[in-house]
Amino acid sequence: MLKLFYAPNACSLASHIALEEAGAAFEAVRVNFAETEQRSAAYLEVNPKGRVPALVTDRGVITENPAILAYVAQSFPEAALAPLDDPFAFAQAQDFNLYIAASLHVAYAHLFRPARYAQGEAAAQAMRAHAPQAIGDHFELIEQRFEDGRPWVHGDTYTISDPYLFVMSRWLARDGVGNEGRFPKVLAHRERMIQRPAVRKVLAREALPAI
Amino acid sequence: MLKLFYAPNACSLASHIALEEAGAAFEAVRVNFAETEQRSAAYLEVNPKGRVPALVTDRGVITENPAILAYVAQSFPEAALAPLDDPFAFAQAQDFNLYIAASLHVAYAHLFRPARYAQGEAAAQAMRAHAPQAIGDHFELIEQRFEDGRPWVHGDTYTISDPYLFVMSRWLARDGVGNEGRFPKVLAHRERMIQRPAVRKVLAREALPAI
Repeated sequence: MLKLFYAPNACSLASHIALEEAGAAFEAVRVNFAETEQRSAAYLEVNPKGRVPALVTDRGVITENPAILAYVAQSFPEAALAPLDDPFAFAQAQDFNLYIAASLHVAYAHLFRPARYAQGEAAAQAMRAHAPQAIGDHFELIEQRFEDGRPWVHGDTYTISDPYLFVMSRWLARDGVGNEGRFPKVLAHRERMIQRPAVRKVLAREALPAI
Repeated sequence: MLKLFYAPNACSLASHIALEEAGAAFEAVRVNFAETEQRSAAYLEVNPKGRVPALVTDRGVITENPAILAYVAQSFPEAALAPLDDPFAFAQAQDFNLYIAASLHVAYAHLFRPARYAQGEAAAQAMRAHAPQAIGDHFELIEQRFEDGRPWVHGDTYTISDPYLFVMSRWLARDGVGNEGRFPKVLAHRERMIQRPAVRKVLAREALPAI
């Protein structure tokens, strides 16, 4: 059976929701960041990078959100979570997920985990000061997608990009981000996500409030 | 016809090589970073993010390396650049590409483009001071993959992950990185890449030396 290692409200929430939406049989295993369990010898055996998510399959481990999201979509085609038979449409879904992984999530990480990128409190302060603008710039581009009234990231059909955006839009409410009011269409998408039974189920499992 | 926007020796080199390996008909268009052409109105119409690569197709644009790499593999299946019929093996290729995009390339960006992440020369210095260690930590994990003697990132078969690693291992030779000698297996992979006709052709087109 699939086993997902997650930390509550970490970016692993995207993979967690996708597995639930897919109707996959899986076990969700919490990694306790407060006790730095992600750096324990036992967890580093699962994922040498010391991060979540990690999806353990019977053939090995997958450790990056966009890779897991595409894997879930391909492994459970009946759930129709990605346009699997159309390389260009699939690439667009991946493109969006990559932008989150390599740009938006990275911008957040400078706010939440500056020690990953430089040492010293002065540098950390400079990164935290810059992050809200970078996060805002990324959300500007995302907000524009919804200008045509589409309900989901890629149009009328819910895909693996929607739970990933949901994680990012939830983080808008965290301390120090300060951009939340600027992006009404992104917030409307967040509300739409909260109405989905799979999302509610996963939030309850991670013991998280709706936002 | 496909059109690839690239800058010489930027990460777009990975997508450029993949297109050449696939035998794709495409036009390569140089974006002049020295004149900040990536911020010109004309280029922002192509890619609002102001980055390379951007692959223009007859249906729209794809703008992130791992998304382009997977698209090339899926669009030219006869080139066998990824395990397309095996979701787990495909996920492993994506996992590696994501690690480059969201971790290793990001670590390099703190050395080469610190202004992307914080303002001020003091913060830039702190990021540049930290980057070589972060880059080295990531290459440690990559070096370990080759311990079994495999010629390519995923084993005996060349895939879309190989040109992406090649870009990263070429950057090891750039000023201020300082880790090059620590990773002989990665350097042997780099040598193997240089022997490939498609790689030589693309290096010549981008007017780059072998390393």
